[in-house]
Amino acid sequence: MSLLDRIRYCRRRDIARFRRFVVAGLPVGWIAHGLADRLRGFPDVFAVSGDAVRVVDGLDSFETRSRAVGDAILRLREEGWFPGWRNEFFAVASSFQAPPLLQIERGAARAFGIRCYCVQLNGIIGRDGEPQTWIARRSLSKPVGPGKLDQVVGGGLPIGVGLRDNLIKECAEEASIPAALARQARPVGAVAYLTQDGDICDDEVMFNYDLVLPPDFTPVNTDGEVAGFEPWPLTRVKAVLAAGDDFLFDVALSLIDFLIRHGVVGPADPDYIAICEGLWSVPDAAGEMAA
Amino acid sequence: MSLLDRIRYCRRRDIARFRRFVVAGLPVGWIAHGLADRLRGFPDVFAVSGDAVRVVDGLDSFETRSRAVGDAILRLREEGWFPGWRNEFFAVASSFQAPPLLQIERGAARAFGIRCYCVQLNGIIGRDGEPQTWIARRSLSKPVGPGKLDQVVGGGLPIGVGLRDNLIKECAEEASIPAALARQARPVGAVAYLTQDGDICDDEVMFNYDLVLPPDFTPVNTDGEVAGFEPWPLTRVKAVLAAGDDFLFDVALSLIDFLIRHGVVGPADPDYIAICEGLWSVPDAAGEMAA
Repeated sequence: MSLLDRIRYCRRRDIARFRRFVVAGLPVGWIAHGLADRLRGFPDVFAVSGDAVRVVDGLDSFETRSRAVGDAILRLREEGWFPGWRNEFFAVASSFQAPPLLQIERGAARAFGIRCYCVQLNGIIGRDGEPQTWIARRSLSKPVGPGKLDQVVGGGLPIGVGLRDNLIKECAEEASIPAALARQARPVGAVAYLTQDGDICDDEVMFNYDLVLPPDFTPVNTDGEVAGFEPWPLTRVKAVLAAGDDFLFDVALSLIDFLIRHGVVGPADPDYIAICEGLWSVPDAAGEMAA
Repeated sequence: MSLLDRIRYCRRRDIARFRRFVVAGLPVGWIAHGLADRLRGFPDVFAVSGDAVRVVDGLDSFETRSRAVGDAILRLREEGWFPGWRNEFFAVASSFQAPPLLQIERGAARAFGIRCYCVQLNGIIGRDGEPQTWIARRSLSKPVGPGKLDQVVGGGLPIGVGLRDNLIKECAEEASIPAALARQARPVGAVAYLTQDGDICDDEVMFNYDLVLPPDFTPVNTDGEVAGFEPWPLTRVKAVLAAGDDFLFDVALSLIDFLIRHGVVGPADPDYIAICEGLWSVPDAAGEMAA
């Protein structure tokens, strides 16, 4: 096992399992064949062919698409699709900057293979000596990765919320980091992945931030999403990441980027170039898997 | 003009201009057709076909290959090939970790499209207030990029020299940074490119380092490779990079990575995701251009 294995996990694909999800002529997601076939039952909403699921042309606005797709999703939820309902909406768009074509419940976004965006925070402990960071253990009630190790703060980006505002909100909820402190977080880059796990295609861009926390600050969770926090030396983060999958699979990407930027993983690592390449090669949702 | 233009410049290719350079069955470079045809004149050294230039199988050791290829290169140099002779050798290998298959004069390495490795140092000025870094102007006598703007220290990696030792040597020669200070440089990642300019294919991996320099330290060049140094706010670095090609083309990559890591280029930039992707997607010398 190695850091590169963590990256390879986030690069696994079996595109034969999926059809493109197309809205307004633009590819915006990946839908497994089983769900695609079920969507044939909503001919007023979806036009399903052998290679794509298209939102029908008659639905030609953000509002009409969101309502029609949302109604279908609620019906499917009653049939047991989409575990992990969140009562939160993600934007569906052809790029991060593009205006949303519709919004979709977060709990269904994964099954539609929508590109999601999140903020991830490295909570650096501002103390001399060996560099340390706060590591969280995810609550057992989390729909994704219950009990896995995590960064101090991280969260998906709901529609209509800016990255910085989302970071400040998550800092408060997940770790009781005051807004004045959270505002000092520095953007340090983005890592991305497109990976497939069974009938789910996860396509995500992670916006990474570093924040130096005062040595007397201890994170306290308020929203029930974190079971606890521990201060870890960065060398321990590296060792545990390399040894197995104790960390949530995508958090591993963000943390490897952190270790690279802070020199804890350096050029003496035989995988250094491959790690740098793998971390940052953002998969093109519209191209790479289309083949 | 934009930061993304600087990255796109380093991603330009016209593979139809080149044949693979193959040693011991391994692709290690790119040779333009004109040079490839001239190499037919050395049948004891090179086997030239329509799609590749191979070092002949009879040359089966590092020593025999280096001598035979080196002799041919000296002959060609007399004919005017290979401007910019350096009296320094680069390793030719199938990867950074692999044992070298031969060594080749640095001045000829570009014409053979050998993957090169270099160290690049960001000299951060350790002073409160707006972050600043030392920017160099390259000497007009440099064979590559005379007069262009540059980082405080940077240098190609000669065969048999470690990255860290090379960095310390270049720090002394290029900027009079004492070894004890240079040793504090932190590796912060690698960026790579594979770009084509006329009959030259540049394939390079840049190992980046950050070093905080004391506010009373002023770099002084000793090897004639730098015309002068100036302290620049990072916002000025960003503006000049975005405005045109005043910086050496590959130094731009290393500096954009620096600006991303330090939050000077942030997610509000509409090209942020594309920049992160473009910076780090290391081209696979053995694959991508082979097509």
